[in-house]
Amino acid sequence: MAEPATATQAAAPAVPQLKDELDIVIPTIRNLDFLEMWRPFFQPYHLIIVQDGDPSKTIKVPDGFGYELYNRNDINRILGPKASCISFKDSACRCFGYMVSKKKYIFTIDDDCFVAKDPSGKAINALEQHIKNLLSPSTPFFFNTLYDPFRDGADFVRGYPFSLREGVPTAVSHGLWLNIPDYDAPTQLVKPLERNTRFVDAVLTIPKGTLFPMCGMNLAFDRELIGPAMYFGLMGDGQPIGRYDDMWAGWCTKVICDHLALGVKTGLPYIYHSKASNPFVNLRKEYKGIFWQEEIIPFFQQIVLPKDCTTVQKCYIELAKQVKEKLSKVDPYFDKLAEAMVTWIEAWDELNPTGSSVTNGKAK
Amino acid sequence: MAEPATATQAAAPAVPQLKDELDIVIPTIRNLDFLEMWRPFFQPYHLIIVQDGDPSKTIKVPDGFGYELYNRNDINRILGPKASCISFKDSACRCFGYMVSKKKYIFTIDDDCFVAKDPSGKAINALEQHIKNLLSPSTPFFFNTLYDPFRDGADFVRGYPFSLREGVPTAVSHGLWLNIPDYDAPTQLVKPLERNTRFVDAVLTIPKGTLFPMCGMNLAFDRELIGPAMYFGLMGDGQPIGRYDDMWAGWCTKVICDHLALGVKTGLPYIYHSKASNPFVNLRKEYKGIFWQEEIIPFFQQIVLPKDCTTVQKCYIELAKQVKEKLSKVDPYFDKLAEAMVTWIEAWDELNPTGSSVTNGKAK
Repeated sequence: MAEPATATQAAAPAVPQLKDELDIVIPTIRNLDFLEMWRPFFQPYHLIIVQDGDPSKTIKVPDGFGYELYNRNDINRILGPKASCISFKDSACRCFGYMVSKKKYIFTIDDDCFVAKDPSGKAINALEQHIKNLLSPSTPFFFNTLYDPFRDGADFVRGYPFSLREGVPTAVSHGLWLNIPDYDAPTQLVKPLERNTRFVDAVLTIPKGTLFPMCGMNLAFDRELIGPAMYFGLMGDGQPIGRYDDMWAGWCTKVICDHLALGVKTGLPYIYHSKASNPFVNLRKEYKGIFWQEEIIPFFQQIVLPKDCTTVQKCYIELAKQVKEKLSKVDPYFDKLAEAMVTWIEAWDELNPTGSSVTNGKAK
Repeated sequence: MAEPATATQAAAPAVPQLKDELDIVIPTIRNLDFLEMWRPFFQPYHLIIVQDGDPSKTIKVPDGFGYELYNRNDINRILGPKASCISFKDSACRCFGYMVSKKKYIFTIDDDCFVAKDPSGKAINALEQHIKNLLSPSTPFFFNTLYDPFRDGADFVRGYPFSLREGVPTAVSHGLWLNIPDYDAPTQLVKPLERNTRFVDAVLTIPKGTLFPMCGMNLAFDRELIGPAMYFGLMGDGQPIGRYDDMWAGWCTKVICDHLALGVKTGLPYIYHSKASNPFVNLRKEYKGIFWQEEIIPFFQQIVLPKDCTTVQKCYIELAKQVKEKLSKVDPYFDKLAEAMVTWIEAWDELNPTGSSVTNGKAK
């Protein structure tokens, strides 16, 4: 049912919003031909490409895009010993791009994601929708049954407290996928033919106190508000686990957003996810995570951050401490991860010395 | 954009589900011509009509429907002095219908709600969708980004803990409205022309710990699981407030569902809401509620029900106690309401003496 749009269906917006305030971060191991399709939407923006495999390989980027590209050698050179916190041979390395960016907003997308079509056949400008989501407030304290009250044609419904209608700043916009849904290996194995064809025309705030599985395939965020929490953990080469990089970032980000009264939205925009990854390979990467998440999620559900954690960095260091204390008993991996979380913040602060990110958010 | 369906677009399902286990409750002051349009969907079911005005007036019901009708005289006769807990001259009286029903499920709908069409032009069988919602589990403990994982073509996404995939029983299904949205009087006044034309093809569980504005216009629930919490309060004749009947029921229901590990779903089905009520009249009814809800909602957000509240009735009596203790200072009305809440439970138990509702739910 769902098909990708063709290049001719994609029309660029008259004025690309946030052109100089947003970087597009793409982790990859291959030539970026997929950008051809996104050209009308992405070309005005700057790209940060993070090469996640063999640094001697050359990644080809279509002509006309402005980009910077980092491979493992660059990461090692820039971060020195702190490069240990950046995953190797795994798309988790994308978070290095968040760190080196100097922009306020980040959009990150996988290189197997294409332009989707809405039910009328129109190509979806995913980036434009993410920007809309990020620039309008979130409503985490009370549920609005007509979804995002800030969309055209919608509002707060009867019974929504007026004192909460101002909303809070949106830190994260989580987009979805038509065609290949983001399933775990067991579900992929059981339902190899399942495709997502349902276009749900909604954006909604994930309520305070509720965790969600954040997928890194089609994701945007406000770097100044939440950047330092967007660490994708230790995955890939030499690690006992994969495919939990974005989940880890999602859990950490959500509890910090809840603490700092920031919003997380999910729903539109859709991208067209072209190809299911190999479920057998995925199962090998995931299987420890499948066990571990049964303890990790209750851990995150019970987290209380102290009142003096007034910045994302302070929250994140506190989280690292609690991870060490409470998850090390699950596996020694979490000891290493907790240390990497601290290294990540040190590296972040080194690259973003006076960044406004230090003073954003307000604890409640 | 949104238009109601015509009678010919409505096709009855081959086998009406739960035909003998569901009552349709309709509060009204006028002849029920609106049922003509619903005939293909509602005729197999039994109706309970609660007349909310002058009992000497005759309400005409289209031929072919099986129904029982209660007016104020009937309510007084059946409940005696306990009839004081049932509102008069207000659609809040509909909850009397929940009480006298002997069925497991209730669907309640307003008489200005018509059959809506989906984007393909097909008439929406709202009742059928509510039944689907009620018969499939809810997932209140973790958010699923592809919405209801129990719908065809959907599932739990990567990162959803496997231990939570069984879900919990669904107690409430909250449907939405095309055309006239359910706005409060101030929003009606400010946006007189706003119409809801957005069909969002989703059902989702409202997460544990999150309150929502429950509208009584298009609502279904499992009477055995949650019936005694569906009290619509004291509204209408002689009361200082109106249009908060369903909100009150929603707040109470949600905290009890959260306590008993039951689910509340919202989203599909849509009905076509034909006519906006008078915003000036509404403002008069609502204005105290607009103030009061600023204190009521924090009250409900902080409620903790004791572990020994293992039935809906026990939870509700405890709620009444806390309302008396903490909301009476807002207005003496809440004293009266807390007493009516207790009377409601007494009346419920009198009419439902050995009901399985007494033993449902499990405290956690």
